[in-house]
Amino acid sequence: MVNGAFARMSVRSVCVGFLTIALVALPAWGRAAAQSAGYDSVDPFIGTGADGHTFPGATVPFGMVQLSPDTQINNFKHSYKWAAGYRYEDSTILGFSETHFSGAGHSDLGDFLIQPIAGEVRLEPGDVDKPLSGYRSRFSHATEKAAPGYYAVTLADYDVRAELTATARVGVHRYTFPSDREAHLLLDMRSSIYNYAGKVLWSRVRVRQDGTVTGMRETRGWAPGRQLYFAMRFSRPVTGHSLVDREPLPVEYKGFKTPGDTPENTQAMEGRGLVATFDFGKLNAPLVVKVAISPVSEDGAIANLDAEVPGFDFDAVHASARAAWEKALSVVSFDAEPAMRKNLYTAMYHALLAPSLSMDVDGSYRGPDNQVHRAQGFQFVSSLSLWDTYRAEQPLMTLIEPESRTSDLVRSMLASQQESPFGMLPVWQFQGIETWCMIGYHAVPEIADAYMKGIGGFDANKALDAMVATADYAPYGHLGEYMKLGYVPVDGGAANSHQEAVSQTIEYAFDDWTIAQMARKLGRNDVAERFEKRSENWKNVFDPKVGFVRPRLADGSWREPFDPARAGADSGFTEGNAWQYSWYEPQDEAGMIKLLGGDQKLVAKLDAMFDAKVDPKQYADVEDMAGLIGQYVHGNEPSHHLAYLYDYAGEPWRTQERLGQIVESQYRPAPNGLVGNDDLGQMSAWMIFTGMGFYPVAPASNEYVIGRPFVERATMHLPSGKKFEVVADGLSKSHPYVESVSLNGKPLTRSFLRQDEIVAGGELRFVMGGAPNRTWATSVAARPFSMSEAH
Amino acid sequence: MVNGAFARMSVRSVCVGFLTIALVALPAWGRAAAQSAGYDSVDPFIGTGADGHTFPGATVPFGMVQLSPDTQINNFKHSYKWAAGYRYEDSTILGFSETHFSGAGHSDLGDFLIQPIAGEVRLEPGDVDKPLSGYRSRFSHATEKAAPGYYAVTLADYDVRAELTATARVGVHRYTFPSDREAHLLLDMRSSIYNYAGKVLWSRVRVRQDGTVTGMRETRGWAPGRQLYFAMRFSRPVTGHSLVDREPLPVEYKGFKTPGDTPENTQAMEGRGLVATFDFGKLNAPLVVKVAISPVSEDGAIANLDAEVPGFDFDAVHASARAAWEKALSVVSFDAEPAMRKNLYTAMYHALLAPSLSMDVDGSYRGPDNQVHRAQGFQFVSSLSLWDTYRAEQPLMTLIEPESRTSDLVRSMLASQQESPFGMLPVWQFQGIETWCMIGYHAVPEIADAYMKGIGGFDANKALDAMVATADYAPYGHLGEYMKLGYVPVDGGAANSHQEAVSQTIEYAFDDWTIAQMARKLGRNDVAERFEKRSENWKNVFDPKVGFVRPRLADGSWREPFDPARAGADSGFTEGNAWQYSWYEPQDEAGMIKLLGGDQKLVAKLDAMFDAKVDPKQYADVEDMAGLIGQYVHGNEPSHHLAYLYDYAGEPWRTQERLGQIVESQYRPAPNGLVGNDDLGQMSAWMIFTGMGFYPVAPASNEYVIGRPFVERATMHLPSGKKFEVVADGLSKSHPYVESVSLNGKPLTRSFLRQDEIVAGGELRFVMGGAPNRTWATSVAARPFSMSEAH
Repeated sequence: MVNGAFARMSVRSVCVGFLTIALVALPAWGRAAAQSAGYDSVDPFIGTGADGHTFPGATVPFGMVQLSPDTQINNFKHSYKWAAGYRYEDSTILGFSETHFSGAGHSDLGDFLIQPIAGEVRLEPGDVDKPLSGYRSRFSHATEKAAPGYYAVTLADYDVRAELTATARVGVHRYTFPSDREAHLLLDMRSSIYNYAGKVLWSRVRVRQDGTVTGMRETRGWAPGRQLYFAMRFSRPVTGHSLVDREPLPVEYKGFKTPGDTPENTQAMEGRGLVATFDFGKLNAPLVVKVAISPVSEDGAIANLDAEVPGFDFDAVHASARAAWEKALSVVSFDAEPAMRKNLYTAMYHALLAPSLSMDVDGSYRGPDNQVHRAQGFQFVSSLSLWDTYRAEQPLMTLIEPESRTSDLVRSMLASQQESPFGMLPVWQFQGIETWCMIGYHAVPEIADAYMKGIGGFDANKALDAMVATADYAPYGHLGEYMKLGYVPVDGGAANSHQEAVSQTIEYAFDDWTIAQMARKLGRNDVAERFEKRSENWKNVFDPKVGFVRPRLADGSWREPFDPARAGADSGFTEGNAWQYSWYEPQDEAGMIKLLGGDQKLVAKLDAMFDAKVDPKQYADVEDMAGLIGQYVHGNEPSHHLAYLYDYAGEPWRTQERLGQIVESQYRPAPNGLVGNDDLGQMSAWMIFTGMGFYPVAPASNEYVIGRPFVERATMHLPSGKKFEVVADGLSKSHPYVESVSLNGKPLTRSFLRQDEIVAGGELRFVMGGAPNRTWATSVAARPFSMSEAH
Repeated sequence: MVNGAFARMSVRSVCVGFLTIALVALPAWGRAAAQSAGYDSVDPFIGTGADGHTFPGATVPFGMVQLSPDTQINNFKHSYKWAAGYRYEDSTILGFSETHFSGAGHSDLGDFLIQPIAGEVRLEPGDVDKPLSGYRSRFSHATEKAAPGYYAVTLADYDVRAELTATARVGVHRYTFPSDREAHLLLDMRSSIYNYAGKVLWSRVRVRQDGTVTGMRETRGWAPGRQLYFAMRFSRPVTGHSLVDREPLPVEYKGFKTPGDTPENTQAMEGRGLVATFDFGKLNAPLVVKVAISPVSEDGAIANLDAEVPGFDFDAVHASARAAWEKALSVVSFDAEPAMRKNLYTAMYHALLAPSLSMDVDGSYRGPDNQVHRAQGFQFVSSLSLWDTYRAEQPLMTLIEPESRTSDLVRSMLASQQESPFGMLPVWQFQGIETWCMIGYHAVPEIADAYMKGIGGFDANKALDAMVATADYAPYGHLGEYMKLGYVPVDGGAANSHQEAVSQTIEYAFDDWTIAQMARKLGRNDVAERFEKRSENWKNVFDPKVGFVRPRLADGSWREPFDPARAGADSGFTEGNAWQYSWYEPQDEAGMIKLLGGDQKLVAKLDAMFDAKVDPKQYADVEDMAGLIGQYVHGNEPSHHLAYLYDYAGEPWRTQERLGQIVESQYRPAPNGLVGNDDLGQMSAWMIFTGMGFYPVAPASNEYVIGRPFVERATMHLPSGKKFEVVADGLSKSHPYVESVSLNGKPLTRSFLRQDEIVAGGELRFVMGGAPNRTWATSVAARPFSMSEAH
């Protein structure tokens, strides 16, 4: 098999030629790979360039600390590009901070920037083009090393080797200074991702008697009034320190600051422009710095530090982080050619970063009311990019992380709903604080999906109450109008206030259907009926005459003129247009096909979408519209199910073709290899499911739509101890079609797979062929669930 | 006696003529007054005009809530004059807020301004001169009523009768609206005492499902980063509400605020410019509003509300507040002519306002590290105006409130020292947060005084450790230089950084002596010796050649030229000059007299001070120098012991004369009747002690210096159940001199009284005469303690 693998590999190296050198150095890939082989296949740099917005730094799976270098000060103009703090294209590093999002579109965090400095200390970052004009340092990618749980780089201007690793709540830095220069650490409390004057509402730094440095800052960034605390300790004695406040104060200010007469500049300081420096003299051995964070308090951060990293053994923490990743990544093992293998393991790595922990070791966390609560028997998690993750990331978690990232997630969201001033489930929440980013109430399908899959640990009836309360909260996202009219009118309220009306209607209708699914299973038929009715609201914005969903006015008429390619401000669509949104009825694709006029109409629409001639510059100003294949936009979530829709029209081979087209063009194992934001794992989860040959088009349906595999073999090690294996016989570039499928040795003649079939364990075997099989899974009954009479 | 009292009163009514009408209405004053008579004698308006800085609103003794009207927006220019929120001279009321200082020199608080509005709602305060240009309303003093625990006024522009009362943690408002106009409440989260753009760092308002309104604000005023939370409930249903943020946002701001697309303006809002309004329709009955505060959290505020005011019975809360005051005020009963009686009971009222409670019902409080702590077995108190109160206010508390305001105070300060980032005892702390206001470490004499008086409840050795740590904290107030040189040099550090050098040296030396006293009693002789030596440091700034303390340079030479009348910036003195500070050696007045050259030299200096011709405008720009009698400045604390110093020189009749001169000119029972800030009770405590005939010149000495009484009789009802009575036989305007003194029937021939003599209970009887007794208590041994050989 190894030889055979090599044989196929040589074919593939044509299209992934840049990997040939790597292949020579790594001859032993194959299905017998050891646990560490998955770990070794991860490349954290994938997505750190272009629009991926991933970071290369160190974290453990779902870590509260995600410690990584920041390369640029992020402000209004640059908030999108530097959403992860680091861009591969940059040449200088500002320092290393404890918190980052992986693949987010908006930005925040970058809390507690630390920069090691050898020699003279400068308190401002300085210019990129003027070395040593500030504290930033040049670096070369040649000196960088990144692996799950570990990052290293040499800061050229200081000749400092910087290494990072982490536990769940503690970032551990190891800095090796040149022994002939004074070693310092700079802590810039002003530095932030998505920074601007006034973002830091308040901050504190305190040097305690025992040398522990603690503090906090409160920011108004993406999240309002967010407080984060830290506790920091050094492995070497501090020989001196200074605390300064760089905020220019109003001339008339007569507050608590009376110069020269208070001890404020000694052991503690508070204000809005704090910079602290710590001196260590000349060092002959590395300096280890450990920084714990807490959303609750300084005492909480100290407790987190004590609990997770009692000493200063960087290598031990690194070994633990590596072990945690090896275990986490081994949940699915992939046999595939190296580029795909690297894509998949890195995708799995990125999928395992969020929802991240947001809770102290004692269970205390900060909820959406910004008050401190105590989690009873569950882990409070946050960084909930729900508009993205309900599609594939969270369904993936139901398979591989049913406890910590599903049951705990649901309990976290239900607690949040109780604590929310609005009585709403989270929309886009991080560190417990709501940002109101994006549209929909997609906590609802995540909970429904978990419940429908039999995942427990929460009170289902109370969960349904929370879902209904959220879906009925009239002031949110024009839900009042939606409930009254059956759709969100594009002309409601003030100018431009309803500019996402169509997308909202479409997504609300799907979310409503998931409520109905859960209510039906719970026997709460009144709720089920009401929301089944609401789930049909997509029809209210679907105009059969033009064959698209389109903006509708409050008086019931369609807005004219209509251009399905129109996106952006006031288009009626969220980061997209009618080309992507019109086919988003996972709850009733059959109904959509019917309105459209039959299977071939849908196929024609999909083909028109994929094959459209689009000027790449056309959507340059629309956030997140990247990765275009015609009007298909793989870089953003509304497109993620689209290739699978050919299955619904009875032409699964077309799905197979389109998936090949997407995978080939949209995923490359390189820093600029992700065409769009990874979105807290959603882009990655798409690749993982798609790589295995199936995809959760309709969460809460308990079904996955079958595409085609991109791996020789994938083995899911289910939490039950059972295995679910996907095998692709005869897979090659020239054999991209599904010839036949069997499940546990029996022919599978439908283009969908059921949740229970996966969790029971077994083998899903594809036989791949060089030509389309135009008879497999073409009947209506063989198509995904929504086409069958049962639904 | 009643007739006799009237006889004397008619004499006095000459000098207090404006009280004659009141006297007709109140004929029954005298020693047999009932408990409520003390209550009835309090006039909360005393000190609300001129420089008194007291407030007329409603509170219980030492209440965390001190609810009062605010009459003007306080900013940089006006921070001093409107320190209590209300000035008697004003004609409009902005609203009613829950927190105020009584008599402070600097300012802050005014948290959670509520204004009842009948008719149209305006969101800005508007101009004083333009009625209804904003939400402020005109009012007339004729409609005002104030008594301990109760305040009422009619808001003329709204025809709303407003009444206030309070429990410890809850302010209760009763608003009677005209029945024909729409009733509203406005909550302005921006309004503040000592206000300026940017003071509000962040704030939140939330309308909960059950109608409870909660929120918080965080400010940078006098205290940095101070958080205060509230919970508010209404007796009538809210028919509508609105939340708006009036802060102009930066144009580029792309944060969490996306207009029209979030529920932020419905049930909750956060930001820096919040104004909330609540609508009640037309009301035929009063609206009761109860507002609890918490330094900890919204949940804490709700718990405080539930615990203290479960219903909406305003009258019941008022009756409880009145009962609490009647009990508190009955601790000393005064028989005196009406003006003095009113002065004394009002002084007692003002003395019982601070240190105020700063703790939730569950014992949670916020400490100087701005973290939440739990008080174990004591009440955490704050509003510690220590530079003022260590002199007489706190010594008064050791007699009448040994538990709650002495033992609890000490425990609160020791907890604060543990929590302080600097390891220091409080300097000027409120709501647990340090402001670094004024000089000295006067928590030290307060603790020493309590310990020396045998008041327990704390670990004395740990307390001494905390005192020493504070006194040895080099970065504070130039203590490093003080410890090195034996004085604070006026020319140390940056320009003007050492402008209080002489005052610091003088006060540090006294504080040091109190450490020594306590250490000696504890048997810690090493500490005692070190601080006894430090307590002599006053000599290092006393120049016998000029007979004054004076600024000294770091090289040991005196700064030239020297003018003992120089005050203000760079004078070397704190709110004063060498005339007041030179005689502040309570620990060693004998030593001072010796340096000066004998008793008569001191008498001459004191006379020169009292009799100096001073242009009243000379010190107009120096804060707090008010109430001048020559260079004696009764309106500020450094003068408070000075009249008693004649006793030390063997001329007690001169003390008696000067006290008469001060009392007659500096205390009047009128809004403008206090010549200086009441300073959290210190001005009042001076009057109470002085009224009874003795004063604690040297806290921690366990001795009181005898002056002369101003009351017919004062009865202290000691916590032990014993009584200590002061009787003044023959007291009248023409009999102002002490002819003789007896204690429990035995002649007392010394001019001081011991703590144990008071707490044992008994009778101190003065026989008053028309001429000086030049033989009583003139010998060295008869003079206050520092003159005796024993010291």
